[in-house]
Amino acid sequence: MTVISPHLPRLMVEDAVRAALLEDLGRAGDITTNATIASGANATAVLASREHGYVSGLVLAGTAFRLMDETLRFEFVAHDGDVVKPGDALATINGRARAILSAERVALNFLMHMCGIATYTSKFAAQIAHTNAKVVDTRKTIPGMRTFEKYAVRCGGGVNHRYGLDDAILIKDNHIAVSGSVSKAVENARNYVGHMVKIEIEVDNLDQMREALKVKPDVILLDNMSTDQLSEAVEINRQDNQGAVKLEASGNVNINTIKAIAETGVDYISTSKITMAAPTMDIGLDIII
Amino acid sequence: MTVISPHLPRLMVEDAVRAALLEDLGRAGDITTNATIASGANATAVLASREHGYVSGLVLAGTAFRLMDETLRFEFVAHDGDVVKPGDALATINGRARAILSAERVALNFLMHMCGIATYTSKFAAQIAHTNAKVVDTRKTIPGMRTFEKYAVRCGGGVNHRYGLDDAILIKDNHIAVSGSVSKAVENARNYVGHMVKIEIEVDNLDQMREALKVKPDVILLDNMSTDQLSEAVEINRQDNQGAVKLEASGNVNINTIKAIAETGVDYISTSKITMAAPTMDIGLDIII
Amino acid sequence: MTVISPHLPRLMVEDAVRAALLEDLGRAGDITTNATIASGANATAVLASREHGYVSGLVLAGTAFRLMDETLRFEFVAHDGDVVKPGDALATINGRARAILSAERVALNFLMHMCGIATYTSKFAAQIAHTNAKVVDTRKTIPGMRTFEKYAVRCGGGVNHRYGLDDAILIKDNHIAVSGSVSKAVENARNYVGHMVKIEIEVDNLDQMREALKVKPDVILLDNMSTDQLSEAVEINRQDNQGAVKLEASGNVNINTIKAIAETGVDYISTSKITMAAPTMDIGLDIII
Amino acid sequence: MTVISPHLPRLMVEDAVRAALLEDLGRAGDITTNATIASGANATAVLASREHGYVSGLVLAGTAFRLMDETLRFEFVAHDGDVVKPGDALATINGRARAILSAERVALNFLMHMCGIATYTSKFAAQIAHTNAKVVDTRKTIPGMRTFEKYAVRCGGGVNHRYGLDDAILIKDNHIAVSGSVSKAVENARNYVGHMVKIEIEVDNLDQMREALKVKPDVILLDNMSTDQLSEAVEINRQDNQGAVKLEASGNVNINTIKAIAETGVDYISTSKITMAAPTMDIGLDIII
Amino acid sequence: MTVISPHLPRLMVEDAVRAALLEDLGRAGDITTNATIASGANATAVLASREHGYVSGLVLAGTAFRLMDETLRFEFVAHDGDVVKPGDALATINGRARAILSAERVALNFLMHMCGIATYTSKFAAQIAHTNAKVVDTRKTIPGMRTFEKYAVRCGGGVNHRYGLDDAILIKDNHIAVSGSVSKAVENARNYVGHMVKIEIEVDNLDQMREALKVKPDVILLDNMSTDQLSEAVEINRQDNQGAVKLEASGNVNINTIKAIAETGVDYISTSKITMAAPTMDIGLDIII
Amino acid sequence: MTVISPHLPRLMVEDAVRAALLEDLGRAGDITTNATIASGANATAVLASREHGYVSGLVLAGTAFRLMDETLRFEFVAHDGDVVKPGDALATINGRARAILSAERVALNFLMHMCGIATYTSKFAAQIAHTNAKVVDTRKTIPGMRTFEKYAVRCGGGVNHRYGLDDAILIKDNHIAVSGSVSKAVENARNYVGHMVKIEIEVDNLDQMREALKVKPDVILLDNMSTDQLSEAVEINRQDNQGAVKLEASGNVNINTIKAIAETGVDYISTSKITMAAPTMDIGLDIII
Repeated sequence: MTVISPHLPRLMVEDAVRAALLEDLGRAGDITTNATIASGANATAVLASREHGYVSGLVLAGTAFRLMDETLRFEFVAHDGDVVKPGDALATINGRARAILSAERVALNFLMHMCGIATYTSKFAAQIAHTNAKVVDTRKTIPGMRTFEKYAVRCGGGVNHRYGLDDAILIKDNHIAVSGSVSKAVENARNYVGHMVKIEIEVDNLDQMREALKVKPDVILLDNMSTDQLSEAVEINRQDNQGAVKLEASGNVNINTIKAIAETGVDYISTSKITMAAPTMDIGLDIII
Repeated sequence: MTVISPHLPRLMVEDAVRAALLEDLGRAGDITTNATIASGANATAVLASREHGYVSGLVLAGTAFRLMDETLRFEFVAHDGDVVKPGDALATINGRARAILSAERVALNFLMHMCGIATYTSKFAAQIAHTNAKVVDTRKTIPGMRTFEKYAVRCGGGVNHRYGLDDAILIKDNHIAVSGSVSKAVENARNYVGHMVKIEIEVDNLDQMREALKVKPDVILLDNMSTDQLSEAVEINRQDNQGAVKLEASGNVNINTIKAIAETGVDYISTSKITMAAPTMDIGLDIII
Repeated sequence: MTVISPHLPRLMVEDAVRAALLEDLGRAGDITTNATIASGANATAVLASREHGYVSGLVLAGTAFRLMDETLRFEFVAHDGDVVKPGDALATINGRARAILSAERVALNFLMHMCGIATYTSKFAAQIAHTNAKVVDTRKTIPGMRTFEKYAVRCGGGVNHRYGLDDAILIKDNHIAVSGSVSKAVENARNYVGHMVKIEIEVDNLDQMREALKVKPDVILLDNMSTDQLSEAVEINRQDNQGAVKLEASGNVNINTIKAIAETGVDYISTSKITMAAPTMDIGLDIII
Repeated sequence: MTVISPHLPRLMVEDAVRAALLEDLGRAGDITTNATIASGANATAVLASREHGYVSGLVLAGTAFRLMDETLRFEFVAHDGDVVKPGDALATINGRARAILSAERVALNFLMHMCGIATYTSKFAAQIAHTNAKVVDTRKTIPGMRTFEKYAVRCGGGVNHRYGLDDAILIKDNHIAVSGSVSKAVENARNYVGHMVKIEIEVDNLDQMREALKVKPDVILLDNMSTDQLSEAVEINRQDNQGAVKLEASGNVNINTIKAIAETGVDYISTSKITMAAPTMDIGLDIII
Repeated sequence: MTVISPHLPRLMVEDAVRAALLEDLGRAGDITTNATIASGANATAVLASREHGYVSGLVLAGTAFRLMDETLRFEFVAHDGDVVKPGDALATINGRARAILSAERVALNFLMHMCGIATYTSKFAAQIAHTNAKVVDTRKTIPGMRTFEKYAVRCGGGVNHRYGLDDAILIKDNHIAVSGSVSKAVENARNYVGHMVKIEIEVDNLDQMREALKVKPDVILLDNMSTDQLSEAVEINRQDNQGAVKLEASGNVNINTIKAIAETGVDYISTSKITMAAPTMDIGLDIII
Repeated sequence: MTVISPHLPRLMVEDAVRAALLEDLGRAGDITTNATIASGANATAVLASREHGYVSGLVLAGTAFRLMDETLRFEFVAHDGDVVKPGDALATINGRARAILSAERVALNFLMHMCGIATYTSKFAAQIAHTNAKVVDTRKTIPGMRTFEKYAVRCGGGVNHRYGLDDAILIKDNHIAVSGSVSKAVENARNYVGHMVKIEIEVDNLDQMREALKVKPDVILLDNMSTDQLSEAVEINRQDNQGAVKLEASGNVNINTIKAIAETGVDYISTSKITMAAPTMDIGLDIII
C-alpha cells in the first residue's frame, strides 16, 4: 500500500489564519512587543512538543508566521501525521523577533487544538487496531474549523464522515417520520441526488435495519444499540449482502467503550468525542537565540 | 448592586453564524432534508438542555435559525447566564421544517461549545466563591471564537483578561530579557501606550516581584509559584501598596488546585482550562409537533 | 414516488446576488434612473418569458429586487422546475420604480442564464427519456456560478455529478499513470477517503474497464468510446456484477449523439454542453403600471 | 498608431480566482490527486489550444496556478489578443504535480470562457471590418464576470459599452416615459451628472431620433430598426451634425445580420451575443513530463 | 427643470456602515453601555445640527442605527441636500437605549464628515453662482469613502469628476511624455476606449492647449494657469469650437481664489479642497426621553 | 529612555490598501495609463514632501505599490515619525511605469491624510511641550481609518485614547443618568469588566468630580470647564490622591486654547481636532527617470 500523507494546501488555510491574526492584533497591534522589542531585533525560535502525540496543523502555524512577516523563515522539523514525544521539535522560525512573538499565540492556538484532536483520535484508533473497524468523526465541530478538525482526525488515523449537509445523504428519524417509512425515505433520497452521492440511513433497532436493507443503502447507522444488538446486526448484514452494505455504530462511544463496540464486527464507529472532547496538546515556542 | 446580564448584539455574531451555516450547507445545501421533507411542511421544535449547566450563546442559535429562514420564529425560554437542569427548555422554534433541520447542527455546535465553557467556568468559580479571587480567561481560544468564548466565560461567572494583543500590556520573560530589566520593560511600555491601557508584568519569583513593585504596574502576574510563594507575594504587596496593585496567579491551575491558590489571597487566577478544556454541554433539538 | 422540487435557500444566493448588484451599481449607482425617475414613484412590473423553456433561479431574481429595496414585493407566479411558454409570467414586482429598474439587469442576467441551462438540459433529457440513462453535468462551469448552474441542471431534469474536487473521487489518466495501474489508483483512493465518498475511475478502453471492475469502483467512466464499445461495456458489466457498478459515458456528447449513446444501456451520460453551451433564455421585465 | 495590448493587472483578478479555486476545492481539497500523487512529484504541463481563436485571460490562468502553489513557474507562450491555431501552446507550467492538477479545471474554466468570447467577438468584427462600424458589448454578462468578459471583448477586437449603471447615462423607454419626453429626459440627465459622463438615449423611430438630436446627446441608440431606417438615420445625423453624434444600432444583431447593419453607416453595433452566446474555446492541459 | 434629489441606496452603504460599527464595537462590544444601561430600557433621541450647513449622509446614519438593532425606528426630519441651521433636527430615533448609544458615534462620524463636505462645497459654489462655472471634485478622497464623499459634493451643489481610473480618460504630463506628444496621447486613448468614455487632457500652457484642440478632446484641463491665461484660453476655445470642448481649471483653487477663476469663463473648476479640507459639521445626538 | 518608533505591520494595512486600490481601479482599470504607456516601460519615481511635517503611513504607500505589482521595488528614505522639510524624499519606487502610475493616487491619499494628522498633532504637542500634559485623540475618526489615524497621532507625538467601545470604560452623562449617580455608574462598570480595563468618567462640574473621586476611577474627564475650574480640579485631585487619578480635559480645545489648558496641570487633553481638522500634507510623486 502506498502511504499518502495528509495534505492541506496553504490556499485552504490562509483566510482562517489571517482572520485569527487580525482577531488577536485588534486595532492597535501587539503593543507589548512593539513597546519593548526593537524593530531590528532578530531571533530564532523552536516550536516543540511538551507531550507525546500526533502532529497536525503545521502548515497553519507556518502560515501564521509568514503572514505576520513574509521574510520569516519557517522550517519543518516534523510533519503532519508524525508521532512526537516531549521535547521533540516541530519546526524552527528565524527572523524578526517582533513578528515571531506577535504570531506565536495564533500559531499555537491552531496547533495545540489540531494536534490535540489528532492525538485523541489516535488513542481511539489504537483501541480498535486489532479489528477491522475505523473510528469516524461527525459534524459536531467548532464553527469555522471543520476543514481543520477533520484533517486532524485523518492525521490521527481516523476516517472522515461527510463534511457537510451537501456531500452525502444521512437520513435520520425526523426524515423517516415525514417520509412515512424507511424505504420511502431512501427512495426519495435516491431520486433526489446523483450517482456520486452515498446514502446512509440511521436505524434504532433491528426491525428498522431489516427494512433498510431491502432498499440497499450504502451505509446503515446503528444508533445507540447494545453490543449484543450490534453483533446481531453484523450477522444479519453478512447474510443479506455479504457485508457490501457498511455498518456504522454510534451512541455512547468513548475511549472505554469503543473496543467492545469494534469487536462486534461493525465497520465504522462514529463519535463527536474525537473532535469535541479532545484535550489540547501542550506545545511551546522557545526563543533559542 | 445592579446586576447587568451579559449582552452580545446580533451584529457581532451574524458574520460568524452565516459563515458557519455556509460551511455546513456547502455547495448543494441540505440534500437529505430537501429530498425527504416537503418545502411547505411546518414544525415546532424545542432546544432543551440534557445536563445541568449555565446558558450562553442563545443569540447565536437564534441567529442561525433566522439567517436560514427569516420567517422562523425563535423564542427565548431561558437567557444567557441562567442555570438550567436536564430537560429545561432554552428556546422554541416554529416555522418551516426544512429550515429548522438545516440550521439545527450549527445552532447546536455554537450552543454546546459556549454553554460548555460557561458551565466549566462556573465550576472553577464555585471552588473559590468563599474567597475574593476571580477566575480569569486567557488568549488561548479557538481562532475565530474569541469574542464568543470570552462572553461565555462571563456567562459562567468568570472574568475576562485582555481580548487581544492590543488592549492591554502583558510583559513576559522575552520582553523583559530584551528590555534589559523588569523596570526598563515597564518604563518602555508606559512610554508607548496611552493612559487608558493597563500594564501587567509576569514574574517568576519574589525578587522579580519586588523589582516590579517599584515601577507600579497595574497588575503583577505570578507565574508557576507555589501556594507558599503566593501567600508571601500577597503579604509583600499588602505592605507595599495596600493591595492597590492587583495580583494574578497562573500555572498549574485546574479544578482541583484552584481553591488552594485562591486561599492565598491573590486577586485573580487565570487559566486556559476554562476555554480549552471545557467539555461541551449536551443540548438537543426535539421536534415536538 | 414523492416529487420534491428543487430548493435553493436565500442564504445560499445572497452573497452572489449582492456582489452582482454592486458590480452593476459601481461607485455612483444607477445615474440614469436617479436622474429621470422621482424617488417616490411606484410601479408594478412583470417578469415574463419570451420563449418555451424550464424555469430556474427565481429566488435569485427575487433576492436581487429585495436586496435593492427591502420594501419591494416580489411574488412568484411560476416556480423553479416549471415549464413555461412565451408570454407566461414568472413573477411580479411592486414598489419603488427606481429600485425595480436598478435591479432589473442583475435579476435578468441570473435568470436568463439559469433558465437557459435548465431548458437546454431538458432537451438532452428529452432525447433519452425512453431509456434508463440520465444526463449529467461536469465541473466545467463558470467560476462562482457552480451552485447555481448545477441547480439549474436539476431544474431541467438532469443529474449532478460531483460539485467539486472534494466530494467524490474521479480517477483520470494522470492519476492512473502516477499510481502505476488502475487497481493501484483505486486502492490508493480507497485508503485515503472515508466510507461516505464514492469512487469513479475513467477508462479509455475495455481492457482498462475489465481491470477496473476487479477493484469494484462505484462508477466507471467510459471516455470517448464508440457506441459499439459502450454496448459491449454494458454487457461486460452486467455479467460481472449485474449492473451494480454504474457506467457513465462521456466524450462527443451533444444533442444529436446522446440518443444513440443512451440506447447502449449506459446509466449516465455526462457533458459540459448543458452548462457551457446552453443558449440564454429570453426573459423580459415589463412595467405594467 | 501605437498598438497597446489589453491589460488586466493581477490585483484585479486575484479575488475572483481565489474564490473559484476555493469553490472547487471545497472543504476537503482535491482528494483524488492527494490520494494518488505523491506530494514531492513534479511535472511540466502545457496549456494548448485545440481550436483556432483569440487568446484572452492568461493572467487568470497563471494566477490560478500561482495561488494554488506559489512555487509553480508559469510562463506565457502566447499573450492576450494573439491569434492561435489548434496545437499552439498558450503557456507552460512547471512544479509540483499535485498543484498543477488541482488548479487545472479552474484555470481552464476561466480561459475557455474568455477565449470563447474573444474568438466569437472577432468573428463579428471580421464581418464588419470593411466598414467603420465597431461591435460593442452590453451589460448582459454573467454576474461576477463583467470585468473579465468585457476585457475578452477587447481582446477579440470589440469595443466596450458602459461597464455598469454608473459610468454612463443610457436613457431607455421607461426613463423617457416617466420624464415626459426625450428632451426632458436628456435635460434631467445632463443636470444630474458631471462633465465626464457621456449621455446616450435609446429611440425606436426616426421621429424620436429627430427630437433627440435637438438636445445633442453624445450617442443615440437606434433600437430594432430596419436597415432602411438605419440608413435614413445615418443620413439625418450627417445633415444635422456632420456625424458628431454617434449612432449605435441594436436589436436582432447576430453573426448573419451584422454585415448589413454595419453597411448602413452606423458607428457602433451592440449585441449581447458576443458575451452570452459565445461558444467556449476548447483548450487542454497536457502533462508533458 | 425637474429637480432630482441625490440618492444613495442602502445597499451601497451597508457594507461600509457595518464595517464601521464593528470597528468601533471591537471584540467586546460597548462595555460602558452594557454595564450601565439595562437591556430593556428604551429611549428617544434626536440628531440635530449645531451649525448652518447642508445635509448629506442621513441614509448612512439610519443604516448605522438599524444595523445595530433592526427594531429601532429611524425617522427622517430633514433630507440630503437640505439646508439646516443650528438646532434643526435631522432625524429621530426611537427604541432600545443601548442600541442608540452604541451606534451613536459611527452615525455621527459619517454624518459630520459628509455634511462637512456638502457644506464646504456649497461655500465654493456660492462664490461662483453668478458665473456658469461649476465646482468639481477630484480623486483625492479618503480611501474607502469615495462614493460617500462624491455624493456629499453633489448634496452641496458641486459636480463630480470621474469616480476612478476606469470611467474616464484623464491624460497628464507623464502620459503625454511617454506617448510623445499631446496629439499622440489623445489618439492612443481614443483607440483604447469605447464611445461611452470621455477624454480629458491636462495642459500647462496655451501652446499645449492649441495642440490639444486639434485632436478634439471632450475636456481640456488647464492646470496652474493665471487668470489672464485662463481668460485667453476661454477665448481661444470659443473661436476654435464655440465652446463645445469644455474647459476645466485646476491649481491654487481655494475659497478666496475661486471667484476670479470662475469669472474667466471656464466651465469647471476642480479642487481637492472640497473633500480634503472640509471642516466637519457639528452635529449632536440628544436623548430627549 | 529607549525610544521605540511606531510600528504598523503590513498585515494590518493590506486589506484597506487593497480595497482602496480596487475602489480606484473600478471595473476597467487605469484606462489612461494602459492606453498611453507601454506595458514594458520602466520608471523610477520619488515620493517627496512639499511641506514641513511629520511622516506617517509609509508602509501603506509601500503596500499600495507592492499590491499593484509585486515586482516593484519600494525603498524607504524616511521613516514614520521623522520630521521632513519641503523637498525631502520619503521613498523611491522603481519598476513598471504602469504600476507606479496606477497606484500613485491611492498611495498619496493615505500618506497625505496620515502625514497631515501626524503633523497637526505635532503642532498641538509643541504648544504644551513645556508642561506635563499630553494631547490625546478621540473616537471621532473617519470610518474604516481608526487604526491608521490613531497611529498617525502617535507619529506626531500624541497619545491614543481608547480605540473603540470595547477596550476601556468611558462613562458619560447618559450612562450616569440611567445608573442613578456617578458612584453607581462606576460601581456597575467595575462589576462588569475585568481587571485589565481602565475606567474613566466624564464630569461637568467639580461637585461631580468630588463624587467621582470617592469611587476611584482611573481617569476623570473634565468636560467643558474653564481653566479656573481645571486648575481647581487639579488641586482637588492632588489633595485627594496625590495625582494617582489622572485628569483629562476636553471641550473647546484648539491650537490656540491648548496651551492655557495644559498649564492648569491636567494630565491629558483630548480633542477631535487632531484627527478631524488636520489639513492634509502636500506630498508629490515625481518620475525622475
